Amino acid sequence: MNVVELIRKKRDGKFLSEEEIKFLVNGFTKGEIPNYQFSAFLMAAYLKGLNKKETAYLTNAMLYSGIVIDLNFIKGKKVDKHSTGGVGDKTSLIIAPIVAAAGINVPMISGRGLGHTGGTLDKLESIPGFNVNVSLSNYKKIIQKCGAVLAGQTKEVAPADKLIYALRDVTATVESIPLITASIMSKKLAEGIDGLVLDVKTGSGAFMKNYNDSIALAESLVNTAKSFKKKVFAFITDMNQPLGNYIGNWLEVYESIKILQGEKVDDLLELSLNLSGAMIMLGGKAKTINEGIEISKEMISSGKAFDKFLEIVELQNGNINYIKNTDSYPRSKFNEKIYATKNGYLESINNFEIGMASLELGAGRMKIDDKIDPKAGIIFYPKIGTKIKKGELIAEIFTDKEENIEDAKTRLLSSLKLSNNNSPKIKLIKKVLS
Amino acid sequence: MNVVELIRKKRDGKFLSEEEIKFLVNGFTKGEIPNYQFSAFLMAAYLKGLNKKETAYLTNAMLYSGIVIDLNFIKGKKVDKHSTGGVGDKTSLIIAPIVAAAGINVPMISGRGLGHTGGTLDKLESIPGFNVNVSLSNYKKIIQKCGAVLAGQTKEVAPADKLIYALRDVTATVESIPLITASIMSKKLAEGIDGLVLDVKTGSGAFMKNYNDSIALAESLVNTAKSFKKKVFAFITDMNQPLGNYIGNWLEVYESIKILQGEKVDDLLELSLNLSGAMIMLGGKAKTINEGIEISKEMISSGKAFDKFLEIVELQNGNINYIKNTDSYPRSKFNEKIYATKNGYLESINNFEIGMASLELGAGRMKIDDKIDPKAGIIFYPKIGTKIKKGELIAEIFTDKEENIEDAKTRLLSSLKLSNNNSPKIKLIKKVLS
Repeated sequence: MNVVELIRKKRDGKFLSEEEIKFLVNGFTKGEIPNYQFSAFLMAAYLKGLNKKETAYLTNAMLYSGIVIDLNFIKGKKVDKHSTGGVGDKTSLIIAPIVAAAGINVPMISGRGLGHTGGTLDKLESIPGFNVNVSLSNYKKIIQKCGAVLAGQTKEVAPADKLIYALRDVTATVESIPLITASIMSKKLAEGIDGLVLDVKTGSGAFMKNYNDSIALAESLVNTAKSFKKKVFAFITDMNQPLGNYIGNWLEVYESIKILQGEKVDDLLELSLNLSGAMIMLGGKAKTINEGIEISKEMISSGKAFDKFLEIVELQNGNINYIKNTDSYPRSKFNEKIYATKNGYLESINNFEIGMASLELGAGRMKIDDKIDPKAGIIFYPKIGTKIKKGELIAEIFTDKEENIEDAKTRLLSSLKLSNNNSPKIKLIKKVLS
Repeated sequence: MNVVELIRKKRDGKFLSEEEIKFLVNGFTKGEIPNYQFSAFLMAAYLKGLNKKETAYLTNAMLYSGIVIDLNFIKGKKVDKHSTGGVGDKTSLIIAPIVAAAGINVPMISGRGLGHTGGTLDKLESIPGFNVNVSLSNYKKIIQKCGAVLAGQTKEVAPADKLIYALRDVTATVESIPLITASIMSKKLAEGIDGLVLDVKTGSGAFMKNYNDSIALAESLVNTAKSFKKKVFAFITDMNQPLGNYIGNWLEVYESIKILQGEKVDDLLELSLNLSGAMIMLGGKAKTINEGIEISKEMISSGKAFDKFLEIVELQNGNINYIKNTDSYPRSKFNEKIYATKNGYLESINNFEIGMASLELGAGRMKIDDKIDPKAGIIFYPKIGTKIKKGELIAEIFTDKEENIEDAKTRLLSSLKLSNNNSPKIKLIKKVLS
């Protein structure tokens, strides 16, 4: 096969066969196809699209660039969840223990924070000692022991994805639904799962800000999962405001602990229960999502979910004393309170700005090798559709970076759009596809 | 400026400013922008296009990646011709001496054969001793002495074009009208010319097989030339059959000599006179193309054009004995005659196949470092719209490669489409733009 011919084919909007896509992905992964040819292919694919079949072929080629983890030796179904990322989105920390406590295995491979969004691995590492870099054999041992593992991508899993993602990042070919689909699905399918629940975020704090794009991505993910004969649910959920109230790595672990201990945080609890309910259903322990939600509630109220969380943390070398006694966790040097400067109904939030403020306070990375401050972040109280009174506490910020406090304050206050008229609340779960 | 942002802008169909295009071209040429980013930009530009202004900006950035040759010290106008290439297209060899003999400077920088088409430099090098790799100072000296120079691109001229073309070649981004325009015009404008005559080929032996594409390319070239305040004519001319009868490097020099000595080869003479006539008009020595044609005819009949050719060859170290006495030129080991296998009217020719047959016989390169056999090639007699009788001599082939004779024969015979009905002759000059 001739690389230039294949690039030309896609450039001209023609369809590539399974063999042709495999040739491109394998050639690039092995270093036989130079990056300047692969980037031309990526741009052609970005602009001309990949159809359902091509997306599945690409996913397959990326998946089999590495190993598919064999978890057949572990009894019971294996189900995972993937979120496209947002601000304050800490559901992984909540649902993995709930679902594992319900007797379903959760072999979860997660990522780092990206841009204005946090990442599960960074959140977990805010727990002193917690190790996300588990070897493949340890990965298998941990999940066999406690039914869940929360780990980073090992080098054996979808190496093509790492290489392709790095190239997409510097060639303006990230925001492509088929390319995003193959990237997500190649990693998730490598986990050796039976079912997958997808949380596709939409709104100002999501990567897909536009609702129709989010639907299209969800459909593409569902189609691809089905073509690999995996059971799947895709939730389209709101990301126009932070999920829950805590943003920042340890702050999100803290809020997750509160939920697992039975605290009611409206939106965060609602979404967590729906996602875990769907996972329990896909895992065969419930006939409907609602039945799965009831089981999830029991796991929380019985304390089983929280115990499972302690078990996971301990098996991954995390210090459970901080989980049991959150007050003992170190505090930021600076803790400032922000108050509303006027009255009004909260009509909308520029949620991207909230994420950026958190990043600036130390909770995220500006550059790839920046060190994260696990303590840093924001507690953000207001929700869209509520009334705000001048002088009311809007947010608290936690940081060691005194020089960034003013800018973060400005970002937070200017992210709020107040109106004189009553604004509607936002529907959290907008659609469920399967 | 951020490279990814600029790629994204073009990817999204937005327009790039002069500064932005300069930043990309300069960065790539200096090696500061890696080829994988530039190839993504090229593919985005291929698929989303560049408008008139952007094409001029790109041309300008590529032009000023090197020097613009200053020929102001030479009296008289400087006019050049560029052809997009075809089979048997040897007009450069004919018109440069005609126009120089008429008192206009022709500072011609040419290229090598590409694919199925021949290149002026390869043809010139078939003359023993002829040196196309002249230094910049020699280039100036030769044109000052005799009013014409026939040389290759020096390293000082449009270095960005060389780098960009090499990348386009391996990333399926060659066939783009704005990118072709910038490539041609950056080199031609670097010659320091006052006017330019373009010969845009159309048909089965051209790069632009489709008439509308040829028109679009011609318009783009004319627009760009005008934006640089150059006088310009663009001829759209037929390339559905070889131009003249001789194809192959020395064979084309031979046919050019015959024309310069007053022989009438219908199509080749007609096109050469039109192009030289237009050049003479742009050079200010004629009021109309027709007046320029009359002057051209005089240059031939007076022997001045042929003398000028001898002068150019001598100044570039070519052995003029072969020009004066063409019979002394070495002969190919094999010379085969091909005869028509049936009766009919010649309806069409797959001219690409004629070019490929010539290449196969040794007149072109299969791979970039193949050595050309200057003697090899084809004399091809039939013209579309004429009657062919079974047993009639169709072509003669000249080669040292015995093993390729059969395939070349097959290509030549199967390139002919005969019909029982009288087919129309083809109009050579289809349109003239200015």
